[in-house]
Amino acid sequence: MAAWGERLAGVRGVLLDISGVLYDGGEGGGAPIPGSVEALARLKRSQLKVRFCTNESQKSRGDLVGMLRRLGFDISEGEVTAPAPATCLILKERGLRPHLLIHDGVRSEFDQIDTSNPNCVVIADAGDGFSYQNMNKAFQVLMELENPVLFSLGKGRYYKETSGLMLDVGPYTKALEYACGIEAEVVGKPSPEFFKSALREMRVEAHQAIMIGDDIVGDVSGAQRCGMRALQVRTGKFSTRDPILAPRPGIEPTPPAVEAQSLNHWTAREVPPF
Amino acid sequence: MAAWGERLAGVRGVLLDISGVLYDGGEGGGAPIPGSVEALARLKRSQLKVRFCTNESQKSRGDLVGMLRRLGFDISEGEVTAPAPATCLILKERGLRPHLLIHDGVRSEFDQIDTSNPNCVVIADAGDGFSYQNMNKAFQVLMELENPVLFSLGKGRYYKETSGLMLDVGPYTKALEYACGIEAEVVGKPSPEFFKSALREMRVEAHQAIMIGDDIVGDVSGAQRCGMRALQVRTGKFSTRDPILAPRPGIEPTPPAVEAQSLNHWTAREVPPF
Repeated sequence: MAAWGERLAGVRGVLLDISGVLYDGGEGGGAPIPGSVEALARLKRSQLKVRFCTNESQKSRGDLVGMLRRLGFDISEGEVTAPAPATCLILKERGLRPHLLIHDGVRSEFDQIDTSNPNCVVIADAGDGFSYQNMNKAFQVLMELENPVLFSLGKGRYYKETSGLMLDVGPYTKALEYACGIEAEVVGKPSPEFFKSALREMRVEAHQAIMIGDDIVGDVSGAQRCGMRALQVRTGKFSTRDPILAPRPGIEPTPPAVEAQSLNHWTAREVPPF
Repeated sequence: MAAWGERLAGVRGVLLDISGVLYDGGEGGGAPIPGSVEALARLKRSQLKVRFCTNESQKSRGDLVGMLRRLGFDISEGEVTAPAPATCLILKERGLRPHLLIHDGVRSEFDQIDTSNPNCVVIADAGDGFSYQNMNKAFQVLMELENPVLFSLGKGRYYKETSGLMLDVGPYTKALEYACGIEAEVVGKPSPEFFKSALREMRVEAHQAIMIGDDIVGDVSGAQRCGMRALQVRTGKFSTRDPILAPRPGIEPTPPAVEAQSLNHWTAREVPPF
C-alpha cells in the first residue's frame, strides 16, 4: 500500500461510483457509508477533479442528488453521469420509441421521449416493477419486432441495500436476452462509451483518471479496459468471494489496481490536503 | 413427405410433448389443438407405444392429467414423465433440502421433501410467482450457500397460451445463473437423463422412438442428441422464425427430422390403422 504515491502519479480526476461507495440504499432512503461524507468533502477540497459515474436507474438524477444532499453529500446534478439521460440521447439519435420496463422513480427522465407504437425496449433497475406481467409484456413487445432492440441501463448483477443483497437489472436483461435470442445494448458501466462520456464531461484523459467503485466488473474491470486506473472499495457489494468468483461466467478476471476499505479510508491516506 | 414410411421404419414408441402439441394453455384451462384428441386416440389404437414427456412444471401430474382428461384426452398419470417427480428423486438421492421457487399448482409434488434450512434452490415455471421479491429471496438463499446448487425444471424460453406467448422458466434460470455466477442443473427436456428415463419407462430404445414436440431446442434437438428421431409440429410455440433464430444464442441449429402441421395431421397420414 505504500506505493500509492507512485500509483497516483499523474492522476487529475476521480470518478466515483455512488451506491456502495457513498451510501447503501434501503428503507427510508438508505444510509451513508461511515466517513464517506467527509471523504467526498476532502476530495472536493483537493486539486483533483471529481465526477460521479453511476448505474443508478431507479431514480432520476434530480431525485438521486436530492437524496444524497439530504444525507450530507456535496453533489450537484450536473456532476452526475447516469444511464437514463445517456439512453435518451441514443433514442433520439436513432429515432427509436421505447417500451419502458423501468422504475417509476426514473420515469421523469423519459418525459420528452415518444413511447407510442414502440420499436425497442428499455430495461432499467425496475425493482418491484420486475413482475412476471411486466417482464412478459416487454418480452412480447420484443418478439413482435422484426429486429428486436433491447437497451439495458447497466448490467450489474446485484447491489447492496441496508437489508441485504438485491438483484440488479443485469439478471433481468439476461432473462430477456435468452427468451428472445438477442443481445442487449448496455448503456452504463462497464460500457466504454459510458466511461468515455464521463471523462469528456470531467475534461480529463483516461490515463489521468481513477475510477473508485465496489463492483469488480462494472467499475474496476470496465474502467481498466478504458485505460483508467481503478480501485475497489471493500464496502457496498464488495465480497471476499469476488476473487473466487473471478473465473465464473460474467465475471472478468481483471484485478483491481489496489483495494481500499472505504472511500474515507482511501482519501484520508492518499489525497493530499489542499 | 412421401418418404415417411421409410423414416418411421423400426419405430416402436412415440414420445409426445403436451403443451403446444395436445393443447394450448390459458384462461379456463386452455383449449385442445384441433384434431389432437382424435390424433391421440388414433395413436393409442395403433401398434405404437405412447408416452408423454413434458416440461410442465406449473401443475402436479395429477392436476395436469385431470385437466387433459376433461378436455377429452385419453391419458393417465402413470404415462407422464414430468420434471417435478424427477427432481424429488434427485433431491432425496443427494440429501438436498430445497428452497422452492415454484407455482402453487405443483407444490403438492414436493409434499414429502424436507424444505427446512435449505441448501439448494429449485426453480420451476412459477408464472405470476416470479415476482421481484420471490426472485430476490431465491437469489439470497443461493448467495448464502458455500456451494450454491440450482435445479431448473426445464429451460424453455417461452410457451404459447391462448392469449399469446408467455415467458417460461428458462429466462428466470438464466437470471439467477448470471446473478450468482453459477450454472443450473436442468431436470427436464433437453437433458439427456430426462429423455432416457422416459424411454426406460416406455421400454423402448432410443433408435426405436420418435419425439413429437413444438420446441426446436427442448424437444427436437434434445431428442436427436439422444439418438431418437424427432418431429416438430407447426402448432404451439412453433414459429416460422425458428430457423431464422437458429444461429442465435441459446438455439441449437439442429433441424427437425421433418415438419408436420399438427399431431392430427401427422397421425392421419403416417400412423397405420389398427
